Order: sequence, then structure tokens, then C-alpha cells
Amino acid sequence: MKVRAYAASEAGSRLEPFEYELGELGDNQVDIKVDHCGICHSDLSMLNNDWGMTEYPFVPGHEVVGRIARIGDRVAHLAAGDPVGLGWHSGYCMSCEQCLHGDHNLCANAEGTIVGRHGGFADTVRADANAVFQLPDGLDMANAGPLLCGGITVFNPLVQFGISPTAHIGVLGIGGLGHLALKFARAWGCHVTALTSPGKMDQARQLGAHEVLNSRDPDSIAGAAGRFDLLLSTVNVTQDWDSLVATLRPRGRLHVLGAVLEPLELSVFPLLMAQRAVSGSPVGAPSTIVSMLEFAARHDIAPVAEHFSMNQVNEAMERLHSGQAHYRLILDRD
Amino acid sequence: MKVRAYAASEAGSRLEPFEYELGELGDNQVDIKVDHCGICHSDLSMLNNDWGMTEYPFVPGHEVVGRIARIGDRVAHLAAGDPVGLGWHSGYCMSCEQCLHGDHNLCANAEGTIVGRHGGFADTVRADANAVFQLPDGLDMANAGPLLCGGITVFNPLVQFGISPTAHIGVLGIGGLGHLALKFARAWGCHVTALTSPGKMDQARQLGAHEVLNSRDPDSIAGAAGRFDLLLSTVNVTQDWDSLVATLRPRGRLHVLGAVLEPLELSVFPLLMAQRAVSGSPVGAPSTIVSMLEFAARHDIAPVAEHFSMNQVNEAMERLHSGQAHYRLILDRD
Repeated sequence: MKVRAYAASEAGSRLEPFEYELGELGDNQVDIKVDHCGICHSDLSMLNNDWGMTEYPFVPGHEVVGRIARIGDRVAHLAAGDPVGLGWHSGYCMSCEQCLHGDHNLCANAEGTIVGRHGGFADTVRADANAVFQLPDGLDMANAGPLLCGGITVFNPLVQFGISPTAHIGVLGIGGLGHLALKFARAWGCHVTALTSPGKMDQARQLGAHEVLNSRDPDSIAGAAGRFDLLLSTVNVTQDWDSLVATLRPRGRLHVLGAVLEPLELSVFPLLMAQRAVSGSPVGAPSTIVSMLEFAARHDIAPVAEHFSMNQVNEAMERLHSGQAHYRLILDRD
Repeated sequence: MKVRAYAASEAGSRLEPFEYELGELGDNQVDIKVDHCGICHSDLSMLNNDWGMTEYPFVPGHEVVGRIARIGDRVAHLAAGDPVGLGWHSGYCMSCEQCLHGDHNLCANAEGTIVGRHGGFADTVRADANAVFQLPDGLDMANAGPLLCGGITVFNPLVQFGISPTAHIGVLGIGGLGHLALKFARAWGCHVTALTSPGKMDQARQLGAHEVLNSRDPDSIAGAAGRFDLLLSTVNVTQDWDSLVATLRPRGRLHVLGAVLEPLELSVFPLLMAQRAVSGSPVGAPSTIVSMLEFAARHDIAPVAEHFSMNQVNEAMERLHSGQAHYRLILDRD
């Protein structure tokens, strides 16, 4: 079966129409007819081979929403026509200790939807059925795509660390990830503070923040000393990390979700004296994705997104690159 | 009532006999007749005013073991003659959120036994009754002192992070703290690996390590990739932190107990991709100290210690300074 996709032929190149043959469907696989596909910053990083693991021709897209087109012989929990989503991972080994423990997102042999295979900027995408999720009734399919990567990334820490609705949560950086973090944390019942640039402070309040701090004003950050149980960092540039650690309460956690390339610099005493932690995590495991989708449907959580037709993919990538997108981009099938 | 103590008159000076007046006993206070007092590296740091908070004359000593001499009018849980211990904290505010939550060791207004008041290198030391602990039957009083600071510091993370006896624990640095960490982790039921210098590898095995790695050999550390659920760092000098993070399993934690003065340098990806954390903590709260003492008595855990008479305090401090002590030093009353 032929797939019509958009691919980059080399690092940084434009996306051009590209066809490839899917081959035979595996017993545990499904094919998804793509209706919508979110664009994540990691699509751009992969397109540019920033992480040194891109293979060309490269078809981006790992925030896929569509309907099941075909199912493998041993797939029991999905059926043709089901509305489904697919995120960063398109398969797991299912047999390592991490998979057996329910931490499939930490599986060393997990398959990335756009790593060494072709993603969702296409009319069809294939994946292991264990990495494909039924979309619950009431979820807005047109805007659900970004939940499958950006959404699960910010939702996962709330589950992993057993965050109580009594907690005070800070969200640093209000972009694709950060704006979803505000919505999830607010619906979780927490007190929510956005740390963002002056131009986004009003929007942050509309997105769910009870309070907003100017992240570029050291006095503003210093004034928040000892405030947060959890501070989610969604930025990907170096910060004055010690000043952010100082905003944590005793036993608080700075959790890094943005792929900062420079090392963190962290003084020991502020961690040691107040039992604070600094940590990170990648997307989420299947059971957490299922919880996230149900939670998002119940609380009407969807990204704020700009839509482009799939054949406008280069314009959409330009928009992403500009840093001006509010807040997430979604491609709709032609 | 006059206390006979040993005090430093200025930063770095020798300890000389020093007398001071205790004043009236508070309703919630007790006086302890000191039988033994451990010497902790922080006594030396405080003596030298390394942390900028020392007041002179300075009486060190915060690993006190002795018997209750006098109790305040409102103290109900201790009686004259009781064998007791006193550690880093000599009192807590008892009313802040941390104290009310059972995290007294994170109380911002906790009183340090040797901070702005006189410690246990003396015949008597006073403290709030809430910071003084009955020693359980079967605990070796002569060697229990170091449990009250060094011991609780390494025991506390096992409780705080709900470490399972199925866990693999690494201990970096086999000194005063590290040798107690090996004993506690072994008795906790865990698999225990010591990371230490070549000269201490045999001793580390005798202290409870199932395996020993040469911490100065990068290949040895690299060979332990993905091994530990918890790595306790008891060293106070900068390490190649990324190489230590790499020894953590997915969801593993590098927990820093040594007061390293230089910032940690930590790459983000190894934290983010495997949901790892870096954290720290100070000593432990009263309920954890009670558990630790009971656990130590049940499992015959005591420090390996060298004993000096209190009037040999300067020789003992020299021994500490030399870095040659095996592994903890204890002063016995004259």
C-alpha cells in the first residue's frame, strides 16, 4: 500500500511530497488514516538533525489523530473506524523491565514514531497497536493531536509524583507545552502560577494561571521564594537555575521537560537543606496516556492551536520556527 | 549551673577549657549529662567558620549520648537518668508547616545544637525535649553518638523515598557517613555497592557492600551504567556528576548528602530521557530518628569509631582533619 507523505530530503530542507510503500501489516500493528497531525518542536529538531539520529528522507509528525484503517490479525482492542491517537512512541519492546513495570516510555528499545521510520505528515501512518489510543467520547478530535506528545509530557509528572490538588504548581515558559501545563494543573485542582515574559502574562491568566510572574525580572522570581511544590520548566534555554530552585518549598521539585542543551548548574546547599529535587521525564506510558485522554475529555482540555492544511506544511513549519505560534500548530488532511 | 566545656575562641583555633552558665531550665527543655560525643565533619567546618554562621567562643559537638540530668516542668516523655541522644538540631519551632507535617528537620527556624549556642564537647548540654531521643535497649551507648547526625543523614533517604528492599543502592565515598550508609542499606535488605578509592575496597566489603567499584576509575563507573535505584553521595568534593547519573536506572535518584561547595553540573538529557532525579536532604525528623535508633538496635548497627578522652579533643580534631579516621571519632567524658 502506498503512503502519500511530506518528507525532508536532508537536514533543514523544505518538505516535499513523498510516496513510500508500507509493506505487509504485522500481526500487532494498525494503520491509521490521518485526519490531523500536530507539529511539535521536536519535529523541527529532528528535521534539522539536531540530535544526530535523523534518517532521510524524513517524514515528521508524531501527534497523530485519525481513524483505524486496518488492524493486524492479533489486535483485539481496536477496530476499523475507531478514532485514535498516536504520539512520540509507535511501539515498545513489551518485555523489558520498564515495559513490564508499566513504564513503557522509559523502554530503552521503544520505537519513536519519527525515528528511523516515517511519521504522521502523511495520509496514513502505521504503529504497534499498544502505542495507539482510543480517543474518548467528547474529546475534540480536530485539536486532540498535541495532547499525544505535548499534553502527556506535562500531564505525566502530575501522575508520576502523586501531585495533590492542594499543591502549588509553577509553570515556566508558556508555549506549546506550558499552555497545556496551565490547563492540566488548573483542572487538577492546584494553585497555578505562570512564569513567563511580560507579553504573555494576560494570556497566561486566561489559560488558567491564578498568578503570573515575570520570568525575566529577577526580583519577581526572588519574591516567589519557597512557593512551589512543583515547578515545571518547559523552556529549552538556560536559566538561572538556582534562582528557580529557590522558588521551591521544602521537598519541592524542579522538573525539567524542555530539552536544554547546556548543563544545569545547581548549588548543593539549597537542594540539601530543604530536601529539594531536580528531575526530568519524557512523554508518558500507555496507562498514563489513557488517563490523560479521559481527564482531558472530562475537563474540556484542548490546546489552543492554529490550523494549516497538510499541503501548507512548509508555511506551518515556518510559523513554528518563528516562535510566534499561539500555542500549538495542527495540520489537517488535504 | 556551670558547664565545663571545650571552646574555640576564634576561627581555626585550638579548643581550650571553657566554662559557661546555663541559666534557668525552660519548661520544655532538658539537660543531658554527656557521656560520649561524636565528632562530625561539620564540627570542623563550623569551628573554621566555613559557613559564615559561627559564634565564638564556639563549643562543638552535636552527636551527644548521655543521661537526662534535669527535665523542665512540662516534659513528660523523659525522666532523670534516661539514656538519650541529641543530634544536629536542639529544637524546632513546632508550629510551622514543616513541623506540623512531621518534617521538623526542614523547619526554617530549627535550632542547631552548635549554631549560636553551645554543643556537646562539654559535661552538660541543654536542648528542647522534642529534640532528645530515648536510646532503645540493646543500643551500644558508647558508639551511638554518630548515629544521631551521620547515621540519620544516610538513613533518612531510605525512609523519605520509600526505598524497597529490592532496590540496588550505591554509596559513593566510604567515610563517616558512607560506612554507616553501607550498614543501613545492607540491613534494609538492598543490594549494596560501594564506590570508593582502591585503598578502601576490602573494608567496604567487610562493612556490608556486596560489590565495590573503584570510584577513581572512569571505566569502572561507566561499567555500572543503569545499575542503581538510589546512589547516595557522601563526598564533599566535585565529581563527574554526569557519569554518576549514568549509573542510575530509569527512575533512579542521585541523592547528595555531602556539602559540596561547587555547583553540580548536570546534563539534561540523561535526567529527562530516563526520569532520573538529583536531590539532597539534611539529617532527619524526630519520627525518623526514632525509627533509625530502633532499626540500628535491631540490626546491631553502630559506627566503626576511634575513641578519645574529652581532654584529648585537640588530638581528636587533628585526627579528623587528617582524613585518616576509621571511620568516626567519639569523645568520651574525662
